[in-house]
Amino acid sequence: MRPIALTMGDPAGIGGELTLRAWLALRGRGQTLVALDDPERLAALARTLGLDVPIRLVNRAADATSIFADALPVLPVRLAEPAIHGKPNPANAAAIVASIERAAALCLTGETGAMVTNPINKAALYQAGFHYPGHTEFLAALTGAAGQQIMMLVSPHLRVVPVTVHASLRASIAMLTTKMIVDAARTTAAALGRDFGLATPRLAIAGLNPHAGEQGALGDEETTLIQPAINTLRAEGIDVTGPWPPDTMFTPAARQRYDVAICMYHDQALIPLKTLDMDHGVNVTLGLPIARTSPDHGTAYDIAGKGVADPSSLIAAIALAADLARSRNG
Amino acid sequence: MRPIALTMGDPAGIGGELTLRAWLALRGRGQTLVALDDPERLAALARTLGLDVPIRLVNRAADATSIFADALPVLPVRLAEPAIHGKPNPANAAAIVASIERAAALCLTGETGAMVTNPINKAALYQAGFHYPGHTEFLAALTGAAGQQIMMLVSPHLRVVPVTVHASLRASIAMLTTKMIVDAARTTAAALGRDFGLATPRLAIAGLNPHAGEQGALGDEETTLIQPAINTLRAEGIDVTGPWPPDTMFTPAARQRYDVAICMYHDQALIPLKTLDMDHGVNVTLGLPIARTSPDHGTAYDIAGKGVADPSSLIAAIALAADLARSRNG
Repeated sequence: MRPIALTMGDPAGIGGELTLRAWLALRGRGQTLVALDDPERLAALARTLGLDVPIRLVNRAADATSIFADALPVLPVRLAEPAIHGKPNPANAAAIVASIERAAALCLTGETGAMVTNPINKAALYQAGFHYPGHTEFLAALTGAAGQQIMMLVSPHLRVVPVTVHASLRASIAMLTTKMIVDAARTTAAALGRDFGLATPRLAIAGLNPHAGEQGALGDEETTLIQPAINTLRAEGIDVTGPWPPDTMFTPAARQRYDVAICMYHDQALIPLKTLDMDHGVNVTLGLPIARTSPDHGTAYDIAGKGVADPSSLIAAIALAADLARSRNG
Repeated sequence: MRPIALTMGDPAGIGGELTLRAWLALRGRGQTLVALDDPERLAALARTLGLDVPIRLVNRAADATSIFADALPVLPVRLAEPAIHGKPNPANAAAIVASIERAAALCLTGETGAMVTNPINKAALYQAGFHYPGHTEFLAALTGAAGQQIMMLVSPHLRVVPVTVHASLRASIAMLTTKMIVDAARTTAAALGRDFGLATPRLAIAGLNPHAGEQGALGDEETTLIQPAINTLRAEGIDVTGPWPPDTMFTPAARQRYDVAICMYHDQALIPLKTLDMDHGVNVTLGLPIARTSPDHGTAYDIAGKGVADPSSLIAAIALAADLARSRNG
């Protein structure tokens, strides 16, 4: 089994301590990982936090497998300046970006089976000249991805895809189109088939309005935008149902009827996911030629370096990345 | 303990069978109820469904208490025509309305401690000349309620108040004002004090946008509408926090920090409530001089008369109505 590539993320955030704790949780469990990170900063962080994590430099990702039970394997990506917790430093932007580039390259050559990204702070990277909206767009460029990339959030209880994401609620409604819904559902159906072992995934399409608009009494987007998308997707042979009333589609009984919910806006997807399970949500980027997951939280500057960050989501992201790598192999 | 008045609701819906099943679940439990309903139709329904529910006519609500262990007490409100399941009939609208009027009158005189309403179908009532948007506005008129009435939804896990309710999502955003948020929070704080025994209730005010707008990057309603409402409420001595990011405010840990969530739109309130507990949600009308609850579902014409309707929400509504009656007494 090939190792998973794990990026540094912002070294002023909680990524480093999550990486150390993930190794403690995962060593001896079969799946291995290799950190694209600064070995000195990880060793210093382990000392500060009193974590018994030996760091071992490797030259090739493949070397990680044999040593993983005894030490955290690190392919070195060195920081320009020592990281200070809670203080993003544009001088370290080049190393943050290089870690992502190197992980993507290892996945493209097949040396690693998938990649997991620790959280970054976009504002700090922008100051240093980075010009992508985020990880996803940068990885699409690095890997020459064709078509659309979308975010799916996965927890033990639920998979959700928000069709609109980082915009105000008002703007999300204004930008929603039939084409966006169709594209997101198509990308999702293809990815669930390839990476999740679901030959004919069942997609539930959410309505936008209360009670899915109640035949137009509470809004018409179900009629004008969503139903036409459903018709198009059905004609392509994709198993879709909806538009479902948003408030009743995430109950335990309703969740049995689909493999993924296609949601019209950020909180329609994220409220049920986080209400059911705050700690084990994983972000998966669909539509890339490589498999990539990430934890469902940010850099958490306020608690960085204090030893209190919860590694559950990063560990879940690594476990899911390993599953995706196996699906692509098999 | 005074009985709870239970209305008929639409006799073409599931109300009748829920009433019969509620009696089976509640007899011998201490709390009593009296149905404002057609005794012949309830007796026929019990026979059809094979439910062993003796029906006993009473002349006064107070007589319900002594006989409740042996039979379902009914204050008769007779239908003009036999009800047909799934077929609303405007000829029966007068009886549906009379049942609500009689229950409200019993609460005003204190003969019953609270009222619970079975679901109605507004379209059928409109055809017969009823001109209120729903139960709430009708009850406000019947009881001479001053001020604003609002809906709170209560489950074992969560209390939520949607500031905007039955409008499209687009219209809900457009109509939202600081005054609406302040009024809803004030009414909620007063009702939780009077009816729920919470002397200083803690109110959590939701943001409208993803991440509560991220300092304006994802929408400005948090700054322009919601924060001013919070400032006003704080100045009045009400314990409010927010605006909270909507996706993380309903996790188990977050729910410990408040007694009620004030939500900006229908699904922001209803998605977490129903995702956590579909069957035990109860609707409470705040701001009436009487205590009134209702189950969190509709007439369910599609399953009416089939004996499969789940009485959990009606039973929870009766239990909560009894709690409210006790709080008002004590």
